[in-house]
Amino acid sequence: MTSLQSDLSAPELILLQDGFTLCWQQRLILRHSAEAPCLWIGAGEADIDMFRGNFSIKDRLNEKIALTTASVTQQGAGWDIFFTRGDAVNAMLTIRVDADGRLAIDVKNDSTSHNRIWLRLAAQPEDHIYGCGEQFSYFDLRGKPFPLWTSEQGVGRNKQTYVTWQADCKENAGGDYYWTFFPQPTFVSTQKYYCHVDNSCYMNFDFSAPDYHELAIWEDNATLRFECAETYIDLLEKLTGMLGRQPELPEWVYDGVTLGIQGGTEVCQQKLDTMRNGGVKVNGVWAQDWSGIRMTSFGKRVMWNWKWNSELYPDLKNRIRQWNREGVQFLSYINPYVASDRDLCEEAARHGYLAKDAAGQDYLVEFGEFYGGVVDLTNPEAYAWFKEVIKKNLIELGCNGWMADFGEYLPTDTRLYNGVSAEIMHNAWPALWAKCNYEALEESGKLGEILFFMRAGSTGSQKYSVMMWAGDQNVDWSLDDGLASVVPAALSLAMTGHGLHHSDIGGYTTLFGMQRSKELLLRWCDFSAFTPMMRTHEGNRPGDNWQFDSDAETIAHFARMTTVFTTLKPYIKQAVAQNARTGLPVMRPLFLHYEDDAHTYRLKYQYLFGRDLLVAPVYAEDCREWALYLPQDSWINAWTGEQHCGGGELTVEAPIGKPPVFYRADSDWAALFGSLRHI
Amino acid sequence: MTSLQSDLSAPELILLQDGFTLCWQQRLILRHSAEAPCLWIGAGEADIDMFRGNFSIKDRLNEKIALTTASVTQQGAGWDIFFTRGDAVNAMLTIRVDADGRLAIDVKNDSTSHNRIWLRLAAQPEDHIYGCGEQFSYFDLRGKPFPLWTSEQGVGRNKQTYVTWQADCKENAGGDYYWTFFPQPTFVSTQKYYCHVDNSCYMNFDFSAPDYHELAIWEDNATLRFECAETYIDLLEKLTGMLGRQPELPEWVYDGVTLGIQGGTEVCQQKLDTMRNGGVKVNGVWAQDWSGIRMTSFGKRVMWNWKWNSELYPDLKNRIRQWNREGVQFLSYINPYVASDRDLCEEAARHGYLAKDAAGQDYLVEFGEFYGGVVDLTNPEAYAWFKEVIKKNLIELGCNGWMADFGEYLPTDTRLYNGVSAEIMHNAWPALWAKCNYEALEESGKLGEILFFMRAGSTGSQKYSVMMWAGDQNVDWSLDDGLASVVPAALSLAMTGHGLHHSDIGGYTTLFGMQRSKELLLRWCDFSAFTPMMRTHEGNRPGDNWQFDSDAETIAHFARMTTVFTTLKPYIKQAVAQNARTGLPVMRPLFLHYEDDAHTYRLKYQYLFGRDLLVAPVYAEDCREWALYLPQDSWINAWTGEQHCGGGELTVEAPIGKPPVFYRADSDWAALFGSLRHI
Repeated sequence: MTSLQSDLSAPELILLQDGFTLCWQQRLILRHSAEAPCLWIGAGEADIDMFRGNFSIKDRLNEKIALTTASVTQQGAGWDIFFTRGDAVNAMLTIRVDADGRLAIDVKNDSTSHNRIWLRLAAQPEDHIYGCGEQFSYFDLRGKPFPLWTSEQGVGRNKQTYVTWQADCKENAGGDYYWTFFPQPTFVSTQKYYCHVDNSCYMNFDFSAPDYHELAIWEDNATLRFECAETYIDLLEKLTGMLGRQPELPEWVYDGVTLGIQGGTEVCQQKLDTMRNGGVKVNGVWAQDWSGIRMTSFGKRVMWNWKWNSELYPDLKNRIRQWNREGVQFLSYINPYVASDRDLCEEAARHGYLAKDAAGQDYLVEFGEFYGGVVDLTNPEAYAWFKEVIKKNLIELGCNGWMADFGEYLPTDTRLYNGVSAEIMHNAWPALWAKCNYEALEESGKLGEILFFMRAGSTGSQKYSVMMWAGDQNVDWSLDDGLASVVPAALSLAMTGHGLHHSDIGGYTTLFGMQRSKELLLRWCDFSAFTPMMRTHEGNRPGDNWQFDSDAETIAHFARMTTVFTTLKPYIKQAVAQNARTGLPVMRPLFLHYEDDAHTYRLKYQYLFGRDLLVAPVYAEDCREWALYLPQDSWINAWTGEQHCGGGELTVEAPIGKPPVFYRADSDWAALFGSLRHI
Repeated sequence: MTSLQSDLSAPELILLQDGFTLCWQQRLILRHSAEAPCLWIGAGEADIDMFRGNFSIKDRLNEKIALTTASVTQQGAGWDIFFTRGDAVNAMLTIRVDADGRLAIDVKNDSTSHNRIWLRLAAQPEDHIYGCGEQFSYFDLRGKPFPLWTSEQGVGRNKQTYVTWQADCKENAGGDYYWTFFPQPTFVSTQKYYCHVDNSCYMNFDFSAPDYHELAIWEDNATLRFECAETYIDLLEKLTGMLGRQPELPEWVYDGVTLGIQGGTEVCQQKLDTMRNGGVKVNGVWAQDWSGIRMTSFGKRVMWNWKWNSELYPDLKNRIRQWNREGVQFLSYINPYVASDRDLCEEAARHGYLAKDAAGQDYLVEFGEFYGGVVDLTNPEAYAWFKEVIKKNLIELGCNGWMADFGEYLPTDTRLYNGVSAEIMHNAWPALWAKCNYEALEESGKLGEILFFMRAGSTGSQKYSVMMWAGDQNVDWSLDDGLASVVPAALSLAMTGHGLHHSDIGGYTTLFGMQRSKELLLRWCDFSAFTPMMRTHEGNRPGDNWQFDSDAETIAHFARMTTVFTTLKPYIKQAVAQNARTGLPVMRPLFLHYEDDAHTYRLKYQYLFGRDLLVAPVYAEDCREWALYLPQDSWINAWTGEQHCGGGELTVEAPIGKPPVFYRADSDWAALFGSLRHI
């Protein structure tokens, strides 16, 4: 046994009789022997079908070969490890410290026919794993494989629910536990390191074995990066140091709820007035149908032609000015496709800005009873053109924000301008789309004023997507698809370096008899007051859903909860500022601040909102009491003032409008929190 | 290009620059090159869980290595082909003609750590494939993989049905399209060859590629055998020449319906009398509860202690004698497990006849609210003991037959007397169980008098299982699980060398609100009159199902259809005799006799009954007309006498009691068939 390095901050490679181990700052990262190798290469033919953003992904596996022999050569502060299996196949693994002091592991296949890599990282049975983008069904990822592919989340993500089964059978739209708009090959281990893979190909991170994590990578090369830290907070600072961080939010975001309204200028005005007259703090009107609508069997859909529709929204420019004077922003909608039957698509096609199919024709994607061209964001001219569309048609119109929707639909048989396979570009698309929006803001000097929010994401979204939303929840109480699922989504994204997250108040998807109840809308509103943004959505079938103005009690509820939210403004603002500064997320897993408390690592449905508020949203129907866990600290119930020392489970009264929220007695903000009792 | 052999009846191996091709009687069997190899070896860890006969089977694949280089050495009339991948791994493939003139291909892994083989057989895109045991969802197997593992068939075998979904979610009992009691690694190609693999391990035959069939074999060795023929009929004769054939059926089988009755001697007597008084031809009473019952939430279950229960069946011996005099047989029930709470189990345990668990204790299998010991049929003493149980407790009692149920439940972590892994023995178990029954008959001199019938099967069942039944259909109209599914089941089994098949009239499984309707029972009765045996089953929840004596019209229907059946006795008998002689099955795919008619290869729900009857059972509800296909021939509608020349589709009147049946005008049996019109 020979240790080739002994400086604690440098990687340490120990040669064993039959292999080696690699440690990095006392964490065992790789362990290799002929019997239990750490590297496989092979080949497969991907069979990837898309139907409306739902992907069926299969691999016809041609080979998977364990590389049993490893020959180590020192190279500066690192090593080249030449892996072989007899004289049949080989691959090179390079271990080095990169320019930023991170441990970097490069893997490179030798053979052109090999397009798959499997790398096993050493693990301990007790490790917990978090991250991998936005995960709705699991927060601790240990025990399962997580395929990483951006897609629709699926109408139902649990094969045991009747909704999912119906979606599968009737619409081919059912998902599974790992389906997500925002996957990312990045995870945090409770050994206090992160691992990030620099590649946008399809991957499958399998955390189900007790003593290793197997990362399957559908590429012939990849670079993994690792950093360690003493605390999770430091680790997230390092992770976001690498990935980038979100800037602070526009000031107006904290001033109330953004009302999702459709139907034209006068409908917006009328609903806005109703809500304000009812005492609701409204910071904006979000009209996704600003460009017009089309009716489909799914429900009302936006007209994907990114121009103000002056018939549906007469006098919009003036009205925006008027609303802005009253402290109300106007938000619109855009996505990176253009409806094939409208003029923007025609313009893009004329210039050759659309992605092509195998025959060299414009690739038209079926989006549900209509088709859209894919703006080829890898073509610098097309990218610039679409950025101009944003600047001219949205920013110049006066939009203060928009939903920058979609990004998950790039079919893998698309031919792109940059010549890179669409199978590789597919997962990169959301960040490219975010960047396009971000630059439009930047170049207009509107960063910090205008807010766009996205659901799709990938590596790079941390710095370009200024606000995430949780996508399309079902308007129900299901754990994997309803209100509850938003909490692990926010927390897993937090552990992937994105610290700003909110959701459609009341959920979105109304199918198969689901209808948003009044109770669900009110509970979701309760929850949203303790997230960095409050915004409503009518849902895809507004008439089937309880809405914010459906009765006086609901309006009064929004009045109360928006008052709670705006009361918290200074507190939320500083949390958001801290996220921008250090990558400490606004919604946090409890273990970030209570890392010695083993119980906190298993909490999936409660979180810290900033440093000092603990929130346990009520996500079940007909409950007026709620059980939650308080770590050891001095906690005060936000609604009763009752004090608790924590360190165990607790059941509290949880009437609607008073979601289980506790604040730290020691907080600098205790007085502000105390004032919530008087709302 | 060098041809190493040119005798047409001998295998021909042609060396190519980069590989070889192997032909056998002008069929291309193997095609190998470095780019498109025919052989892979590798390793996996099987993860096999059983819950009540439902298996979850996963493979943690450690390796799959293409063997790209092949070195051929002539060995007598055959060749040894040494396959390598560099110096890393190798395997030997031996091609020879076996003692019976069959092409034999032996594959043997070199490495002890390798326990998987993948062999690709050459295929043409237009080939159809049949067989693989009893397949309920597909007859032509082309286009899909077929894992081969004996198990419960699943309560629902189509993930798109609500029944299957409920079974999956509520009972963990939902199946899939390939689930079957009787899988077998044997198939017939429309290139007119069969391929049979001599091994009982888990296999997966994947027929989905256009130019090859990939056979995955979870073993380190296997022997494949091939024969070719000019016609399918000759091919089946060869196949059954290898596998064995079923003897003729007892004479009494053709004399009416076997009534499935439970509840004791007097209930049997009373129902028998009711039916006979109603004009029904009854050949037997089948009382599966002869050994007593136990109630479970699934329904009434048999007491698995294989002894006459004199409380429930007083005076049985005398009554059997009386019934026999009246031409009525008595049939009972047995399976290869013994209930843990009863004396036979205790006896077996005392002698050490039960299969063991890893700790060396008797392995008790959970069968649904009770446990059973597994009689270790690999232990010659246990086997002999259980054969004695059959002889003494069933044959000596006077049983004229029985259902020899189960055989699919051997858990893979069982430790067996013969020291072979239960993962290998699992698929062999049904034939072992059949053999035990067969020998009990043989040794008692009762072959041809006593009939046992089985649902589980595997290689060897052809010669030992004297009659198959289709297992547990749902009491519904579903294609994959109801009446319809019995037809592909019979036909695929026919192509696997087993020519005797029948089903529970009315189906069996009553769960999740399914109830057998009167129409379903009558239609199933119609169908059964054109199979080699008519037998009813009350189902697992008799009270929920329409029964043969539920009303006078039903009794009259059974009177009519049993008269049809008994009228056909001489015809069916000769068909059964032919099956015994040459392996030509009784229920036949049309292409056996109309092989030039391309359309017949796609027919899944109609069949020839013997040579001269064409049957197209009505398997949908509320239909009084039925569409079917007639190949070119001179056909006469059995009920109307109308003549058709065939060669196309036809829609006929199909009232209950007159299922679509046609006979050949040229048939020697035309007069007999003509007499059906007067029933």
